[in-house]
Amino acid sequence: MSEESFLGKQKGLLFVVSGPAGSGKGTVMQLLMQDPEAFALSVSATTRAPGKNEKDGREYFFVSREKFEDMIAKGELLEYTDYLGNYYGTPRAAAEAVLGTGRHLLLEIDVNGGKQIKKAFPEAVLVMIVPPGAKEQERRLRSRARDSEESILRRLEKAGTELDSLGDYDYVIVNETGKTEETAETFRAIVAAEAASVRRHPDLVGRYFAD
Amino acid sequence: MSEESFLGKQKGLLFVVSGPAGSGKGTVMQLLMQDPEAFALSVSATTRAPGKNEKDGREYFFVSREKFEDMIAKGELLEYTDYLGNYYGTPRAAAEAVLGTGRHLLLEIDVNGGKQIKKAFPEAVLVMIVPPGAKEQERRLRSRARDSEESILRRLEKAGTELDSLGDYDYVIVNETGKTEETAETFRAIVAAEAASVRRHPDLVGRYFAD
Repeated sequence: MSEESFLGKQKGLLFVVSGPAGSGKGTVMQLLMQDPEAFALSVSATTRAPGKNEKDGREYFFVSREKFEDMIAKGELLEYTDYLGNYYGTPRAAAEAVLGTGRHLLLEIDVNGGKQIKKAFPEAVLVMIVPPGAKEQERRLRSRARDSEESILRRLEKAGTELDSLGDYDYVIVNETGKTEETAETFRAIVAAEAASVRRHPDLVGRYFAD
Repeated sequence: MSEESFLGKQKGLLFVVSGPAGSGKGTVMQLLMQDPEAFALSVSATTRAPGKNEKDGREYFFVSREKFEDMIAKGELLEYTDYLGNYYGTPRAAAEAVLGTGRHLLLEIDVNGGKQIKKAFPEAVLVMIVPPGAKEQERRLRSRARDSEESILRRLEKAGTELDSLGDYDYVIVNETGKTEETAETFRAIVAAEAASVRRHPDLVGRYFAD
């Protein structure tokens, strides 16, 4: 559905991207972000201190604990979590601002966050990216050699939890080894299909006859 | 979702393609059919007599009235209609045979047929292709100059009925003038997205850990 059609300018869509460690979802997002007119990455709010090269509003919105809890109370977050004593969350207003520009918002988040988003923002599209099987996932985690044995085992175990939530997701893409561009292409196809979904065009018939 | 993945060979999907006269859906189907390994056109059964260049099983399956009514009684048709004294219908067995090869089946049919298909075959995907507005539809019908004024008016009126059924459809593509290839591309995106739909992979998690 092109933007120039009689339907007028279309809002962007919110995509949750989840997947077990080793799925390659980060690389897929980088490929999508090569088109910054079509996609934007969501910026989270956090109560942790900024790192030396981090800029407020770019990596994160850095806020106080008091402010964050006020945002929770006012329902201003699409989802949030408390991780190792710091809050992390997705501000609704910043998300809406991006979507208003017509760009699609990408939100890389775990399955618990994904479920919160779907509740707070039902029009969100949930995509899970998975490695081509448990064995290949293990091979990938071991080959990148950046994690301890303990961490690898924990991540492999967590894959079970992530995949148990697949039923809450809309789409699943198997990220075959060496085919990340194909995975990105399937993601783009999902974006185009969702934009053509009838439920996203409740006023189409009226516009058709009004033109 | 590629066929070579650990998910094994995937079945084809059934796509209903509808749209008002002048939508250009026929041309879109021709573009899709340039890839006959991915797509196949559905062949209807009919009780009308074959034309001189028509071959049984190619344009239609030509059957007797008795045979056709027997197929209706046995539930062997995904949909059927009685048009000007002849029956036309879609045999389930022929459709299933094509889907079993992994090719996607395209079924160009009106909204009444589309609704019957969705009932008999709920996993079908219903796509409506529409002109960019009523005025442009009229211009297209007049410019092709193959229809009488009466026929043009009847077709314009029918567009209202077709669009009234949009809510029963899954996707809508506005076929902008001069952009039929874009419309075909959006159709292909819908095919890829549907193939990646979580509900079409009920056994993915089991296969993931079994590999």
